[in-house]
Amino acid sequence: MSAPLANDLLLRALLREPTPRTPVWMMRQAGRYLPEYRATRAKAGSFLALCTNPELACEVTLQPLERYPLDAAILFSDILTIPHAMKLGLEFEAGEGPKIARPVRTAADVDALFVPDPASDLRYVIDAVALIRRELGGRVPLIGFAGSPWTVGTYMVEGGGSRTFDHIKRMMYGEPALLHKMLEVVTRATIEYLNAQVAAGAQALMVFDTWGGALSPATYREFSLRYMAYIAAEVTRENEGRRVPLVLFTKGGGAWLPEMAAAGADALGVDWTTDLATARAATAGKVALQGNLDPCVLYAAPKVIEAEVARVLASFGHGEGHVFNLGHGIHQDVDPAHAGAMIAAVHALSPQYHREEG
Amino acid sequence: MSAPLANDLLLRALLREPTPRTPVWMMRQAGRYLPEYRATRAKAGSFLALCTNPELACEVTLQPLERYPLDAAILFSDILTIPHAMKLGLEFEAGEGPKIARPVRTAADVDALFVPDPASDLRYVIDAVALIRRELGGRVPLIGFAGSPWTVGTYMVEGGGSRTFDHIKRMMYGEPALLHKMLEVVTRATIEYLNAQVAAGAQALMVFDTWGGALSPATYREFSLRYMAYIAAEVTRENEGRRVPLVLFTKGGGAWLPEMAAAGADALGVDWTTDLATARAATAGKVALQGNLDPCVLYAAPKVIEAEVARVLASFGHGEGHVFNLGHGIHQDVDPAHAGAMIAAVHALSPQYHREEG
Repeated sequence: MSAPLANDLLLRALLREPTPRTPVWMMRQAGRYLPEYRATRAKAGSFLALCTNPELACEVTLQPLERYPLDAAILFSDILTIPHAMKLGLEFEAGEGPKIARPVRTAADVDALFVPDPASDLRYVIDAVALIRRELGGRVPLIGFAGSPWTVGTYMVEGGGSRTFDHIKRMMYGEPALLHKMLEVVTRATIEYLNAQVAAGAQALMVFDTWGGALSPATYREFSLRYMAYIAAEVTRENEGRRVPLVLFTKGGGAWLPEMAAAGADALGVDWTTDLATARAATAGKVALQGNLDPCVLYAAPKVIEAEVARVLASFGHGEGHVFNLGHGIHQDVDPAHAGAMIAAVHALSPQYHREEG
Repeated sequence: MSAPLANDLLLRALLREPTPRTPVWMMRQAGRYLPEYRATRAKAGSFLALCTNPELACEVTLQPLERYPLDAAILFSDILTIPHAMKLGLEFEAGEGPKIARPVRTAADVDALFVPDPASDLRYVIDAVALIRRELGGRVPLIGFAGSPWTVGTYMVEGGGSRTFDHIKRMMYGEPALLHKMLEVVTRATIEYLNAQVAAGAQALMVFDTWGGALSPATYREFSLRYMAYIAAEVTRENEGRRVPLVLFTKGGGAWLPEMAAAGADALGVDWTTDLATARAATAGKVALQGNLDPCVLYAAPKVIEAEVARVLASFGHGEGHVFNLGHGIHQDVDPAHAGAMIAAVHALSPQYHREEG
């Protein structure tokens, strides 16, 4: 039914199978640093309009693949589609980041939450996934994603971004049962959402736990990792006769990689504050690793970028199970040519680390 | 010349000497959560006016000691006094955080930097230290402090706070020699500044590396830890016949505690993302540890606060070398009674962990 996958390096690396070189993609690769993205975004009128329009979401998803020899496409969307579908009043104010008009603060607020039906409430995402798969024509695999329940929960309770997470931590320490109840609803919603993405054609999945690093070891385990482990246990991991690899990424979670490696995912994202050599030793070959160049390296000259790519590749070292990526999303003021220099360096420098060279 | 020190628990704990209980103080204990602070701040007119007025800085430094049985006073000041003295145009905009009017971006900007003379350019701080010591009358020791060169440097280059540190990382990856040149000037300024604080009466010192956690392991070592180690090597560590302990604190630096422990300080600050048991094992008794309750715990009810204090004390465990603190500054909307509950819990629950009980 679908075109055969011409480039399956990503899927193989995420399952620690041999590849001739290290696959590479970039978090937020469909984004504002690309002039063609800014043009489509202007056409859409707003960020939310772009997310909710399958044709335009497909268009921006494919843009970076036209420019660069990337090994994956990632669905253009946002981690806040679930609270949006829960009708909490999501808005993106210019330069302000996301706002949730009706934050979840009380027992009544939690009781009023419901699990959105992906087929109707999140139809625009599912349609985008199907359309992107069709347009990709089997060039590279498509990654679907969601935010972690904890991270999505921070926006739901805080009503937007936060530096200190006062409101959700107030709930966490003061009414932990209430927070668990909310996170359970978000987790069920996330499982159904990711399953719908797989059914529509997503070939790998990633869960972004952007704010797990704000927790203590004990509260991370209880309020973030636990729910990601539920997702790993419940989500569809096979489709079209192939394993659908799952990547978990807790930004600032370097110290918790050993526990994360036992949560049931195939791979872990690693930010730049942990060396891949350390991460590899800490996870003892149980999972693949994805990362981890500091996105700010892309501000430097191509020669510096190449040296830093070499350092990341050498840090992971020889063998299978590395997907090259940035340690976080690409910054919006990066020169697109510098992203290209990074990708070219991975192509040029990574074959020496793989047995099956060239 | 000075009154003898009635309570030296802090100094003893920082040197891993026996104490009958765990000493306790709070980062940002002289701050906005206290109504008496807000009154003095209103009298001063602005945050910067408060910092630069020795009488008012002394007044707010002593306020938390009137309310709580704390084991230390910490100089009320700001880590940006050095760029202020360098005449880079420091301003605090309401609700916006600090701004540096003339950020340091070019070789010419770096060449124009000078090492301020604490006796003139930072006289208000030195006068505040002397006044606070006099007013303390030997009740508890006075902690002096500075920002780490890297952290102060982020404000100098970014021109204010940042989430991604684009400008300084652009310099770090693109012109590392220029950044080193700037950090060397800031380091020399910091050493002279801390030495002047000790000469004026500071009995312990702390270096706040609030943004070291934004670096990779290699760049942390090269651009932050290296300069803190210079400070540890150069700063006066003895005064009035007593050791002046030095505490280094890198927020988000949990993974680097073993390297920090070798940097020459007496103690390390630990944020709440690392358990003290882990930190203690990682530092192998080479340094004392200071921390590490999540400041958001103080939003919870006193019973929860007590349980979390118990958990922190148990995590450090038996023996010497723990100073109880928050893992970061107290939040401005905390109920002062909750801070009191935390301090009372440390008094009540910590003697059991010390050999010299009661």
